[in-house]
Amino acid sequence: MKFYQTWQGRALGTENSEWFSASVPGNIQKDYAVANGFADWQYADGYKQFLPLEDLDWEYRASLSFEKKEGERVYFVTEGISYKYDILLGGEVIYSYEGMFKPARIDITDRLTDSENILTVHIYPHPKSSRGCRGTRDEANESCIPPVMYGWDWNPRLLMSGMWDEAYIETRDSSYISDTEVLCRLSDDMTVGFVDASWLCGEDCELILLDHEGNEVFRGRERSFTVTRPNLWWCNGQGEPYLYTWIIRNSRHEVSGNIGFRKIRLVRNTGANGPAEFPKSRYEAPITVELNGRRIFAKGSNWVNPELFWGDITEERYRTLISLAKDCNMNIFRMWGGAGAPKKSFYDICDREGIMIWQEFMLACNEYIDTGSYMQVLEKEATAIIKKFRAHPSLAFWCGGNELFNSWSGMDEQSYPLRLLNKLCLELDYDRPFIYTSPLFGMAHGGYVFYSEDQGGDAFNQFIRSNNTAYTEFGIPSLADADTLKEIIPENELFPVVKTAAWTAHHAFGAWGDKRWLCAEVMEKYFGKADSLEELLRQSQWLQCEGYRGAFEEMRRQWPHCSMAINWCYNEPWKTAAGNELIAYPERPKAAYEYVKLALRPTLFSARIPKIDWRAGECFEAELWLLNDAPSDASGKVRATLTVGTESYELIEWEACVTRGENRRGPTVRMTLPDLGYSSIITLTLSSENAGTESKYELLYYPKKPRSAVRILNM
Amino acid sequence: MKFYQTWQGRALGTENSEWFSASVPGNIQKDYAVANGFADWQYADGYKQFLPLEDLDWEYRASLSFEKKEGERVYFVTEGISYKYDILLGGEVIYSYEGMFKPARIDITDRLTDSENILTVHIYPHPKSSRGCRGTRDEANESCIPPVMYGWDWNPRLLMSGMWDEAYIETRDSSYISDTEVLCRLSDDMTVGFVDASWLCGEDCELILLDHEGNEVFRGRERSFTVTRPNLWWCNGQGEPYLYTWIIRNSRHEVSGNIGFRKIRLVRNTGANGPAEFPKSRYEAPITVELNGRRIFAKGSNWVNPELFWGDITEERYRTLISLAKDCNMNIFRMWGGAGAPKKSFYDICDREGIMIWQEFMLACNEYIDTGSYMQVLEKEATAIIKKFRAHPSLAFWCGGNELFNSWSGMDEQSYPLRLLNKLCLELDYDRPFIYTSPLFGMAHGGYVFYSEDQGGDAFNQFIRSNNTAYTEFGIPSLADADTLKEIIPENELFPVVKTAAWTAHHAFGAWGDKRWLCAEVMEKYFGKADSLEELLRQSQWLQCEGYRGAFEEMRRQWPHCSMAINWCYNEPWKTAAGNELIAYPERPKAAYEYVKLALRPTLFSARIPKIDWRAGECFEAELWLLNDAPSDASGKVRATLTVGTESYELIEWEACVTRGENRRGPTVRMTLPDLGYSSIITLTLSSENAGTESKYELLYYPKKPRSAVRILNM
Repeated sequence: MKFYQTWQGRALGTENSEWFSASVPGNIQKDYAVANGFADWQYADGYKQFLPLEDLDWEYRASLSFEKKEGERVYFVTEGISYKYDILLGGEVIYSYEGMFKPARIDITDRLTDSENILTVHIYPHPKSSRGCRGTRDEANESCIPPVMYGWDWNPRLLMSGMWDEAYIETRDSSYISDTEVLCRLSDDMTVGFVDASWLCGEDCELILLDHEGNEVFRGRERSFTVTRPNLWWCNGQGEPYLYTWIIRNSRHEVSGNIGFRKIRLVRNTGANGPAEFPKSRYEAPITVELNGRRIFAKGSNWVNPELFWGDITEERYRTLISLAKDCNMNIFRMWGGAGAPKKSFYDICDREGIMIWQEFMLACNEYIDTGSYMQVLEKEATAIIKKFRAHPSLAFWCGGNELFNSWSGMDEQSYPLRLLNKLCLELDYDRPFIYTSPLFGMAHGGYVFYSEDQGGDAFNQFIRSNNTAYTEFGIPSLADADTLKEIIPENELFPVVKTAAWTAHHAFGAWGDKRWLCAEVMEKYFGKADSLEELLRQSQWLQCEGYRGAFEEMRRQWPHCSMAINWCYNEPWKTAAGNELIAYPERPKAAYEYVKLALRPTLFSARIPKIDWRAGECFEAELWLLNDAPSDASGKVRATLTVGTESYELIEWEACVTRGENRRGPTVRMTLPDLGYSSIITLTLSSENAGTESKYELLYYPKKPRSAVRILNM
Repeated sequence: MKFYQTWQGRALGTENSEWFSASVPGNIQKDYAVANGFADWQYADGYKQFLPLEDLDWEYRASLSFEKKEGERVYFVTEGISYKYDILLGGEVIYSYEGMFKPARIDITDRLTDSENILTVHIYPHPKSSRGCRGTRDEANESCIPPVMYGWDWNPRLLMSGMWDEAYIETRDSSYISDTEVLCRLSDDMTVGFVDASWLCGEDCELILLDHEGNEVFRGRERSFTVTRPNLWWCNGQGEPYLYTWIIRNSRHEVSGNIGFRKIRLVRNTGANGPAEFPKSRYEAPITVELNGRRIFAKGSNWVNPELFWGDITEERYRTLISLAKDCNMNIFRMWGGAGAPKKSFYDICDREGIMIWQEFMLACNEYIDTGSYMQVLEKEATAIIKKFRAHPSLAFWCGGNELFNSWSGMDEQSYPLRLLNKLCLELDYDRPFIYTSPLFGMAHGGYVFYSEDQGGDAFNQFIRSNNTAYTEFGIPSLADADTLKEIIPENELFPVVKTAAWTAHHAFGAWGDKRWLCAEVMEKYFGKADSLEELLRQSQWLQCEGYRGAFEEMRRQWPHCSMAINWCYNEPWKTAAGNELIAYPERPKAAYEYVKLALRPTLFSARIPKIDWRAGECFEAELWLLNDAPSDASGKVRATLTVGTESYELIEWEACVTRGENRRGPTVRMTLPDLGYSSIITLTLSSENAGTESKYELLYYPKKPRSAVRILNM
């Protein structure tokens, strides 16, 4: 029996140490803000109200309230408290821990008194490493706090702490079933499933397995059994995410959950054979997902925490966002390491929706070394995370963290934290792949804008010239929609957009260099100066739409050497003014979401267009492709039409067929562009009798002279 | 007290199952060959006499002979038996094992009878994996036998088994000290050494530590203590390989050994920062050896087993070969994984001589997967190897094996055997680096000839165009000397050299493709057809001399981005007719040895010469360098002189100075080559007041026409 408590909180070591009402799950800094009348921290640079709270100690307390029957034990259960804390009962420390991911189930029965029982959670300030710059994410390099909280280019600095996940008092009698875990694996030929269950209980229990239709597959008191020819769990687009339900029960208590049978490996990408000439080095690191023996193209997005205050994350939010990903034809989320690990319900939903998860540990862009107690905390936290999620079929593989082998982090295969994580995953989750970091050799991160010098061109051109095994971060920013901007930017600063505290706080300026994520110079390069906020928004969103589509389609064209396209990023934890995400806070798809959805259709006609901007007199060209990552053959006839001004030019008809999981390269169409005398949008239409496979690309067109502005009128 | 036994051996399952005298240490196939009058297996294709023995079972037996005092226990001790075997006493199996590296100490006291005690070792045939081709090294891909025994391009196929290392009966009383191990490590600032000893003994023991001069540093009964400001162990060329001696003793028994204090890491190579442009991938894997905080250039060679029959390997052979490496200015051996691990004395000698060891596990060029019992055997064998050598200061780092991440092997970071090895090294030898394989990203293997199309030029040019972090295999073959050839090739086949069974058996043909390692076409390209064996030998050896020197010096010039030059290979297990080794069997330095010794001098003037062959009218050029990997500053004045025919041209004088561990690039000298009208050797001489830093390069010169043969008259 669970008993949820009424909690209070307070800050320590400050003048204002009054108790206030605290939410659990929740975050104590937010409770403090509510109690003390903070202004809207999403507005302008309101988040800075939290900065003075960083180095405080905090306390929760509850006068425990529950009903205990004869013979029952009483537990305090927490799924996670951030970050370093003591738990006290009646003023006596009964548990101390550093780390936010390890659950605790503390038997407090023998410490309870007949009078009032006060449970206190004392939370220490967030650790700040002295290696690196003060006030930056460097400060996270000796702890297991998701470093995103120290500030990132879409996330304001906000060191939140507290009881961010479930916490309650639980009474347990001898029938209570604890420590349940049901793991399964498949025989090499995938015809036999092996189920291993474990639990602790003072009474005899039976184990039941039901298939998806509720038929009983197994019932017995054995803890291990086999399932002959189990239905396999598949990711979205490749088949059904088939789940079985297990039940462990006795006369008075019952626990249940799901399992899915599937075999997952990371295998060498096709054509990744290393240099042909001597001297020879290694070939690219394997990063092709092989699910149930089938090599698949992994397409998806980088998931980041969906709330600044993790306590506010609800299962409903997860459900909406994951459902949007499924509708977008995605099959994978990269759980970016900087944002740590989600609540358990995230995995339950992904199991059901068929979204694979690449789960990173909480290391990102820092040099984590084996200092002090860090290795011990990491071992405990990583162990907790592995055990929490390893039973989920949606969990595809583990990863040490983000960009740790890049020069700005400076970690490598010799780094002890990464060797430890590799070892723990091997010991605790043998059948699941582990990679040290992303990118590994052959994989690539970036670029993050539509056009820049350091990516050598626009988003079309950049990826056509690249030859990577996986694009696991790439992004194109846009401004938020007008409604969002009005909620966060003072009205008199809305247009023209100049660098103010509000725009900067919301990452339009200074997020990365001075100009990002607004990137005004990119819009100006293509469109000239915008006359209104609305026009600027259209320009920005249009570039994001066509850019993301172009990038995703190009990566798919590079299959099978390239086996992944995962953009930066999917969602965001608050209202940014500009950024790379597809879904704006809290769950508003941006315009680009629809374009990504089109690019990720299982089967489509696609055009490889070398650049977005064209000029009268130039020879326009586009290579036609039929893309198909579906597990079935596809065919169709396509007609390519280029519309320039009021004229439409029929360029070619092409009939193509492909087998399952294969693409077909078709003819290249070419046409010298006429001079309209004015700038415009031109359109390449790939029409087909099967409307679901059609594509339509909008490109920029300029007359020979003068180069006038292109107006983006509608999205 | 040790009692060495008299052993007999026999083959089983064949008509000839007579007992014969067996050597221990030794190999039973060799004992059989001796007993049965095999012809010299080094001659012609005589090694083939062993092929019919491959699938036999073998037996050793000894009627145990020893003296046992009251209260003593009796042990059978073996340092290693190859490969899969049972040990029987009085016909009863008392121990079974698969693997040649794990020692066994078996207490047989309670099984002894008062009459004759017969100890038998039954050896099973070598395992042959069914994955891959019969009769090739593929057959080694599911076992822990060093795969070289299955045949390699310098090693004939010879599946040897038996008691290849020490074996004896030992009586132990209560004073016997067993399981001794003394490990040490250094504080981060290297001012404090920590010593941890462990041992088992029925009596109290004291622990003593002596410095190199015999002064007592510690004496006590504690098992852990510190040494303040210990003298550090350095590798050859960087300082003294300072050793301390530990003694564990009681009134009746004493054990002793050495330790050396040093800190070793693999760190990122200078300038290895990954791609500058987006999208970005990882930077090259760290492979710079940092010894006691000092980045050093690792220069050395690949060690392979020095005998076909491992039982024949003696400490004296090790001593001679290691001493030659030290004299050659080397500081590292790569213990190539295909040849497994050496006997313990190898490490003792390297500790004393200051030669670092890169120790690989016994995986090479195969795809080892997690089949059957392989993972279990690997875990046991690797654990034994780690524990056997981890106390040695000369052991620099561990490596999973050879070329496992190359396309012909197909293993990668996901391979379970490699993840297991990484985990075991972390658990059992935390302070020592581990790499999965060689080459990693950035490192390079090859080429292996002086000139070929697939390395895009000659050995000078190839490496000038390369930009790797480490060259850990590269080779240039030569023919053996005339005396050796006369011992292995029938007289009537000596010249002209054509493909016969004898030449092929000894790797002059068919070792790699049809033409290697003779590479007649390379000699012919440069010199025309040779008229005699002697001339062919001179041509071949001259190319090896200049080629190895040119390659080693070029790799040193690429410091600090390049931090390793380790040629393929150092030694050989039998008399090859042609090959890449520097020391011919058993311990005869080839001519190239002296050239490598020159190239590896701590300080020298060196010339970057773009190719070996020049033509009249061409502009000869050479870039001058002062190379210095010594831990001290260096300076000097050099004069470059080019001798063409009878004329010497003084090209330049250059005065240079460098700090410790640094190189200096100097001026490039250029000169249009006159037309002598005949082919010749021309000489670039770098003379200096410090004769120890001088260099002299011999190059090939051809007149405008006709291109006549160059005669190599003297070496």
